[in-house]
Amino acid sequence: MHTRLSGERDRPPRTKGRADALDRLDGMPTLDLSLSAADITRAICDIPSVSDDERMLADAIEAAIRPLPHLEVHRDGDTIVARTALGRAQRVVIAGHIDTVPLNGNLPTRDIEIDGEPFIWGRGTVDMKAGTAVQLKLAAELSDPVVDITWIWYDHEEVEASRSGLTRLAATRPDLFEGDFAILGEPSNGQVEGGCNGTLRAVVRTHGRRSHSARAWMGVNAIHAAAPVLARLAAYEPQEIVVDGLAYREGLNAVRVSGGVAGNVIPDLCEVEVNFRFAPSRSGAEAADHVREVFDGFEVEVTDLAQGARPGLDSPIAQDFVRAVGAVPQPKYGWTDVARFSALGVPAVNYGPGDPSLAHHDEERVAVAQIESCERSLRAWLTAG
Amino acid sequence: MHTRLSGERDRPPRTKGRADALDRLDGMPTLDLSLSAADITRAICDIPSVSDDERMLADAIEAAIRPLPHLEVHRDGDTIVARTALGRAQRVVIAGHIDTVPLNGNLPTRDIEIDGEPFIWGRGTVDMKAGTAVQLKLAAELSDPVVDITWIWYDHEEVEASRSGLTRLAATRPDLFEGDFAILGEPSNGQVEGGCNGTLRAVVRTHGRRSHSARAWMGVNAIHAAAPVLARLAAYEPQEIVVDGLAYREGLNAVRVSGGVAGNVIPDLCEVEVNFRFAPSRSGAEAADHVREVFDGFEVEVTDLAQGARPGLDSPIAQDFVRAVGAVPQPKYGWTDVARFSALGVPAVNYGPGDPSLAHHDEERVAVAQIESCERSLRAWLTAG
Repeated sequence: MHTRLSGERDRPPRTKGRADALDRLDGMPTLDLSLSAADITRAICDIPSVSDDERMLADAIEAAIRPLPHLEVHRDGDTIVARTALGRAQRVVIAGHIDTVPLNGNLPTRDIEIDGEPFIWGRGTVDMKAGTAVQLKLAAELSDPVVDITWIWYDHEEVEASRSGLTRLAATRPDLFEGDFAILGEPSNGQVEGGCNGTLRAVVRTHGRRSHSARAWMGVNAIHAAAPVLARLAAYEPQEIVVDGLAYREGLNAVRVSGGVAGNVIPDLCEVEVNFRFAPSRSGAEAADHVREVFDGFEVEVTDLAQGARPGLDSPIAQDFVRAVGAVPQPKYGWTDVARFSALGVPAVNYGPGDPSLAHHDEERVAVAQIESCERSLRAWLTAG
Repeated sequence: MHTRLSGERDRPPRTKGRADALDRLDGMPTLDLSLSAADITRAICDIPSVSDDERMLADAIEAAIRPLPHLEVHRDGDTIVARTALGRAQRVVIAGHIDTVPLNGNLPTRDIEIDGEPFIWGRGTVDMKAGTAVQLKLAAELSDPVVDITWIWYDHEEVEASRSGLTRLAATRPDLFEGDFAILGEPSNGQVEGGCNGTLRAVVRTHGRRSHSARAWMGVNAIHAAAPVLARLAAYEPQEIVVDGLAYREGLNAVRVSGGVAGNVIPDLCEVEVNFRFAPSRSGAEAADHVREVFDGFEVEVTDLAQGARPGLDSPIAQDFVRAVGAVPQPKYGWTDVARFSALGVPAVNYGPGDPSLAHHDEERVAVAQIESCERSLRAWLTAG
């Protein structure tokens, strides 16, 4: 369903701060973190940073953060870590990625209204530069928070996990991940989303024997042999599994099918790539067993596997955070880097502005009110005595 | 099934004539058409002529044929037509294509033995340079045949019909197709194969709605929707239809399936390309109706359609030919250019050396005895008083 965007074609006047938020000095954009989080969102969205091309944005962030006396800054590739070292009893890690999926004519950002409500439209607004903007603003502002904070802004989240800035950092500087609680600013509609589903990819293969299609009886058609594979997928009934009080909805889907040699050849191979999104109560091995069981009798090769994360909402600091932001925890369906913190023993949640169902969408857009509300709640919790 | 080739690794000594059959003069290969048809086969196979790259072979053929006083030679692109004009009561068109499907490490040709029988192995030996070699040899030799003969050696048979040398020639010089009977030298195991099946290609499409695969319930999976398409193909029982006394075996097969956007996206489109090989008793329109009926309820787009040809064995000259070569007519399963002659009102058959099931095969090979026997039979019929 496509939500009609009223005023989509108009360009309302920019807020005053915008031009200042993104100035260019000797070709390098500079960020003014004293502006509103909405203006910072516009500014960092308008520096395109599709995965592999985050350098310019990382440079701008480093230039804005490095001079702040209350932060120790560490840069690794295009990942920037900024830490307070106030000797607080607890440390919170707050992280956000700075890359986006590819553009599709949806930059520069535009200010639009939907049902009278202001939105910022454009690639990255939801996933997840609005969340990163809130973090950047608070990182600059909060020189005296009640907990120590490790801010992490990282590259290559939207591509293979092996290329992620967090993967690199976890290998070289695991100490920077230490903390009592972690918050990822991934879009969650301003709700606290606990844990996440795991994700598994597998290729289900059928084999045949080639022949000329004029003499099909001399061959064996591998595409026809895949009929039961698709039939099992179509008949599959995904489960909803309650983990630590949150209901995780699973899904098993074909995401690719391919087969065929030429228009006059009986094909000898057909591949169906499936994606299984599984509740965090299943281990990766259990998820793989389940997929093998569904496709019993067929060749199944697991090609990618990332375990989920349990909600992690039972620790006192997590409960305190949930109370402070006044949210009812929800399950996270998409896999996010909370699973990475979870695996390192740090309870983690997703909390950020933006409707996750608009992530990667060509009409990606974030409500300005959600940015402001996330900023207020996070500030209140980080400064409350 | 892969037939074991005894002596496959050995290179037996070449026959003496071989080196002479393919000499190079100023970089251009020259053909000696006084050699044996087997030697001419070796020579013209060793001039690679994958579709689009027939020029060098066409040049060599033209250079060998042009000087012959009993032939009027016409060249159009890489198609060469050579006609006698003896004022005979009847004219026979004898045609062969000079292109091959792509190489796969199967040139130069090798002489091999299977169960003690000599074969020539390599791309093009079956489809159809052995047949073309027999024609070239007889074209040079038969200055006084009992019928007038139009020899046609043409390009681009192995690709889309629109690019075929015959399509071009039929548009510009339909007079060159005139005749009472036509013989295509396509591989038929030395049998006379009458007519041919028609061939139809269609794309069967299913549609869905994209969503992130972590929230699959927001989308509709087009690949799952294709399950009944594959199920109907797997369950399809092809018919055998008797036309003018010959039994034509039909077939309906998927030759390609594709769908998928990305590893984390529910796909909104799946395409199954099917190939229907249908008996010549069905018109093209009837074949299309049949395919639409099989996939009733789905979007079906017919993308390619070539009608078959009835056997064409009821004319006196065809019956005389069948008697002369001592063959029992068989149905032809693959679509061949006989259908083109048939459509022009010229009864046509396939008659050539080589096992058609080895056409396009990586182990393509032709029995030397079949080449010799085709040559003998064709010569006998063309010279019998």
